[in-house]
Amino acid sequence: MGNYRIIEVKQSIFEDNNQDADRLRQQMKESKTFLINLMSSPGSGKTTTLTKLIAALKDDLRIGIMEADIDSDVDADTISRTGVKVIQLHTGGMCHLDADMTRQGVKQLEADNLDLVILENVGNLVCPAEFDTGAAMNMMILSVPEGHDKPLKYPLVFQVCDAMIINKIDVLPYFDFDMEKVREFARRRNPNLQIFPISAKTGEGVDALAAYLKDRITQWKK
Amino acid sequence: MGNYRIIEVKQSIFEDNNQDADRLRQQMKESKTFLINLMSSPGSGKTTTLTKLIAALKDDLRIGIMEADIDSDVDADTISRTGVKVIQLHTGGMCHLDADMTRQGVKQLEADNLDLVILENVGNLVCPAEFDTGAAMNMMILSVPEGHDKPLKYPLVFQVCDAMIINKIDVLPYFDFDMEKVREFARRRNPNLQIFPISAKTGEGVDALAAYLKDRITQWKK
Repeated sequence: MGNYRIIEVKQSIFEDNNQDADRLRQQMKESKTFLINLMSSPGSGKTTTLTKLIAALKDDLRIGIMEADIDSDVDADTISRTGVKVIQLHTGGMCHLDADMTRQGVKQLEADNLDLVILENVGNLVCPAEFDTGAAMNMMILSVPEGHDKPLKYPLVFQVCDAMIINKIDVLPYFDFDMEKVREFARRRNPNLQIFPISAKTGEGVDALAAYLKDRITQWKK
Repeated sequence: MGNYRIIEVKQSIFEDNNQDADRLRQQMKESKTFLINLMSSPGSGKTTTLTKLIAALKDDLRIGIMEADIDSDVDADTISRTGVKVIQLHTGGMCHLDADMTRQGVKQLEADNLDLVILENVGNLVCPAEFDTGAAMNMMILSVPEGHDKPLKYPLVFQVCDAMIINKIDVLPYFDFDMEKVREFARRRNPNLQIFPISAKTGEGVDALAAYLKDRITQWKK
């Protein structure tokens, strides 16, 4: 009974949220602000990856970052040191962001004047994937220590993403992580998934990722 | 509006679920079956830790394992090779288990005849912590690659747990993980938290953890 009630409410929110997400997407298209929704588990290196990506992109693009967290400001503090515009979104215990929460952040960022906004979603491989935030693109990070079997266990996030970053490749020698298997498992969920192995720590692979994003943004603006 | 609706429903479920969890806890106390709810992020090593714990405990205790996954059977397959009783719980997309879902698993396991049941909850540091499963004890795993700042970012799971396992200490040399800081941050959330650094891969620290659990179960049965 309890379960049934949850599912009902989820679906009615989905209907609302999907329409709302489309409205936000349209709005951001008009202001030519590309919104990326970045998802991952806790500890996969979202914040470190962002700082490296910002460094690689900030000469060409006006960037804003939205940090979503349940109730801390740890990451916003780190990101703000890169010099780009940052806001912190507190979800008040919620495990995901929906389009309306995202819109509130976009407004506060005054994103009309930005080329690229990246939303660092709550660290969670499950719930954020269920809610369309209105982003032009979904991207995820899977880190080497998490294991190559994750596409088998958390299928939805792999399905909804356009690109997957495989982070922490500098520690590949110390883990039983099979790069071929993770590609195979992930593409079984999503044949069009673009895959970028990087080390946010050493910077390896970040340029290829930055080039891909610049290219996508240019295509999208046309 | 959307957000408000979610929160309302959550709270009404909480009221039901807390009572239901107490009923299940009482029921398991009567059958002298100790239930552990094990939580962590994806990829922290829950399944590997369980296989090592089972090996250390199975001569003294009759053990059953409940594997909760959104829709895969990867872990149940691994655990079943240890020879203990295993069932797989599919949550059908749900990011957590409540007491009623846990009860369904307990029934199927025929847990009356077991001394210890471990529920491997869905890989997620956020949602499972919000739902009392009816367990006698909550335990979590944080792995070294996830970083020592996680108690700052995901406070609730640290608050509701009696014990925290710090897994993957074999890779400590390759990560900026501060063992003193993680203890300090975690105990700020929960001064009574028992902390067990282990490597499920090499087996280091597993005996101390197994001894602690045996002791807790003995005390609880009295």
